[in-house]
Amino acid sequence: MLSEFQQHLSDQFSELKKSSFLIACSGGVDSMVLTDLCLKSHLDFALAHCNFQLREIEADKDEAFVKDYALQNGINFFNKTFDTHAFAEKEKLSIQEAARELRYTWFKELLKNTKYDYLITAHHLNDSIETFMINLFRGTGLAGLTGIPNKNDKILRPLLVFSRAQIEDYANKNELKWKEDITNASTKYVRNAIRHEVTPILEKQTPQLYASFLKIFDHLKADQNLLNDYISQIKTEVCIEDGQKLKISIKKLETYTNKKTILFHLLKDKGFKAWDDIVDLLSAETGKFKKSQTHLLMRDGEFLSCKKLNKMSEINKSYQLDNLTDKVSFEAGQILFEKADFNLKNNPEHALINPKKLNFPLFLRKTKSDDKFSPLGMTSRKRVWDYLKDKKVSVLDRKEQWVLTDQSNIIWVVGHQIDENYKVLNTDQKCIKVVLVKP
Amino acid sequence: MLSEFQQHLSDQFSELKKSSFLIACSGGVDSMVLTDLCLKSHLDFALAHCNFQLREIEADKDEAFVKDYALQNGINFFNKTFDTHAFAEKEKLSIQEAARELRYTWFKELLKNTKYDYLITAHHLNDSIETFMINLFRGTGLAGLTGIPNKNDKILRPLLVFSRAQIEDYANKNELKWKEDITNASTKYVRNAIRHEVTPILEKQTPQLYASFLKIFDHLKADQNLLNDYISQIKTEVCIEDGQKLKISIKKLETYTNKKTILFHLLKDKGFKAWDDIVDLLSAETGKFKKSQTHLLMRDGEFLSCKKLNKMSEINKSYQLDNLTDKVSFEAGQILFEKADFNLKNNPEHALINPKKLNFPLFLRKTKSDDKFSPLGMTSRKRVWDYLKDKKVSVLDRKEQWVLTDQSNIIWVVGHQIDENYKVLNTDQKCIKVVLVKP
Repeated sequence: MLSEFQQHLSDQFSELKKSSFLIACSGGVDSMVLTDLCLKSHLDFALAHCNFQLREIEADKDEAFVKDYALQNGINFFNKTFDTHAFAEKEKLSIQEAARELRYTWFKELLKNTKYDYLITAHHLNDSIETFMINLFRGTGLAGLTGIPNKNDKILRPLLVFSRAQIEDYANKNELKWKEDITNASTKYVRNAIRHEVTPILEKQTPQLYASFLKIFDHLKADQNLLNDYISQIKTEVCIEDGQKLKISIKKLETYTNKKTILFHLLKDKGFKAWDDIVDLLSAETGKFKKSQTHLLMRDGEFLSCKKLNKMSEINKSYQLDNLTDKVSFEAGQILFEKADFNLKNNPEHALINPKKLNFPLFLRKTKSDDKFSPLGMTSRKRVWDYLKDKKVSVLDRKEQWVLTDQSNIIWVVGHQIDENYKVLNTDQKCIKVVLVKP
Repeated sequence: MLSEFQQHLSDQFSELKKSSFLIACSGGVDSMVLTDLCLKSHLDFALAHCNFQLREIEADKDEAFVKDYALQNGINFFNKTFDTHAFAEKEKLSIQEAARELRYTWFKELLKNTKYDYLITAHHLNDSIETFMINLFRGTGLAGLTGIPNKNDKILRPLLVFSRAQIEDYANKNELKWKEDITNASTKYVRNAIRHEVTPILEKQTPQLYASFLKIFDHLKADQNLLNDYISQIKTEVCIEDGQKLKISIKKLETYTNKKTILFHLLKDKGFKAWDDIVDLLSAETGKFKKSQTHLLMRDGEFLSCKKLNKMSEINKSYQLDNLTDKVSFEAGQILFEKADFNLKNNPEHALINPKKLNFPLFLRKTKSDDKFSPLGMTSRKRVWDYLKDKKVSVLDRKEQWVLTDQSNIIWVVGHQIDENYKVLNTDQKCIKVVLVKP
């Protein structure tokens, strides 16, 4: 296996031979084999060990074991102890998810703060097959069937072509020492069931099971890459990234046959589920929308516009301004006051206000559906919503419009128009300029 | 299940409600349930039964059973008896493959010769899952994981959303009668092993197994369709179909990131296996080639050219012409003789030959690498290959070049040039025109 490993490094992981890296080392058989292979290949690396404090004295013994091994072999050693239970509780995660989150956050920190360029893990072919099966049981798509990725940014996995049996065989033949792997012992029921019940049956049915899965992962990754190329091309053609918004041109999308699948790919990280409903938006009237947990997708004229939902706390947020020296930083920038002469130059980012009318405290908040004001030059009142609609502001932007008010009235539809009642009556008069400084 | 079936027809198979169709009916539980569902849905159909003569008396009993059922229910009935063993032996196929070939050939004949527009089969979700698993064991790509297709031209499969358990449950509850299905009993070892060992383990692990697979097949088919759209688009951009040849522009292909995967998709039905070697052709010199069982792929100037290999019998084929009234029809058209006046007009499809030199029998054959001739106007001899190369004929076409010879010399490099020694000496002389009539 050593020579196969070295060949595999040359073919696929040449960066590891030219740089120094960390090995995520639990002390289990997989990571001890990986460490031994790297040691015998004379690579430049250090060990990184996580103590999740999940098995009390055993976890400390694992840590001591890896530390001792590093010392004996003259390898640099990093370790960190986590209060996994507390973190899981605080973040409302399962112990598994918490450990994973803590582990990878620490690994990234290490890569940032040390001389090491990469971190490698001992994930192997059986892990990849188990992930494939778990995703299968969940009703996955193509992406879920491509196995564990070889490379994820700075995290590399050079053992993915070897089976668990090969790794254990190498450990035994080379008389390596290891500790029962905590992550194996604590993995979830489904993974263990696959490991101990499903894989043995599959192995019995087909002697070439591992070779088949290597081929499958290769083929599916290749197809996935090609599909991603196509999605990128389509995205360039049909999408506009407009600040926080993704706008999908319906006209351009309609030129493709498989619209629904394309929408799925364009929006797949936005949390939507009911794809039939999403497709229906293509022929809905302006203003119709669907929400996921995190995003809003709206028919908006010629576009489907998608934007991240504000958290509830932000939606009802209101900022208070108590006097002329107050400044408020909010989503759309910063609001501040200046004393100014009357200035005929129209600038939507400035509101010139009659100081006699200014009655602190003022408030900055999102507009509501029943907000009305008298746009400058008009005596009748109009819904803010209708005013913006007439100015061709998109539905999505109308919903996000900020207004500056006092305790009873709208003073300024921010970035658009002031209310007639707050206008400067005498152009010689000193006035207050409210300034929107965009970020 | 009846109402689910009817809903499924409305959603996905509305063509069946508007037309008349055949049911492939073995007499097994699956096809008897399908027949019963169609009967109770008042559809317009007939039964088609194959007797493969594989289980002697039992096969005849099955046939009688289905025939009897059709008679009792006033359904039109078609049947055909096959000598499956003899066909398998003759065509060197397994019994399974032979039965499949015979079955579908007959079904297509029936569709052509009867009033029925479609044929439907009773394949169900478990069949699809088994196909998925079999392909998994073989190391398939995306296409192999999309399950059995719903529709293949005129063959439809409206039971693919139902599991075997649902079907058997329906049969029992409705007290249907059926015969042990010959295709089930005789399926290969792997399928049976999956059915009896793998699926039960998977079912035990995940209660939602069938729902998961329905989702997987949906997702993967959608991705497969999108990928096919992309391949078609790429094909339009990088390929030229030139008669029997597929020419791939290397320059255009090089603009894509995932060249290897694209080549795989462009050439996947041509029998190639060693894709690394195929990719190497992109940077090889003109004339380098790779062969599969059926095709030749050659670096040919700015292109990779792919063409079907001639069978060995055709490669060495030589046609004999015994006198002036003989005609020969061959790959490139037809060769015939005409008497003619000398005609200065140069036409590559005509060869004007001095009748005094014409010495029957003549032969028409592919050029060989050591063929030489004296092109008209030259006294020295030149390799046919070099002559064509100077005329910028592509390597692939040079290999396919025909020559007209007598027993010792080349008379005409067909469609290009005659030999100096056969030219007409006196322009007043009557001459023989050899004419190539292109197809």
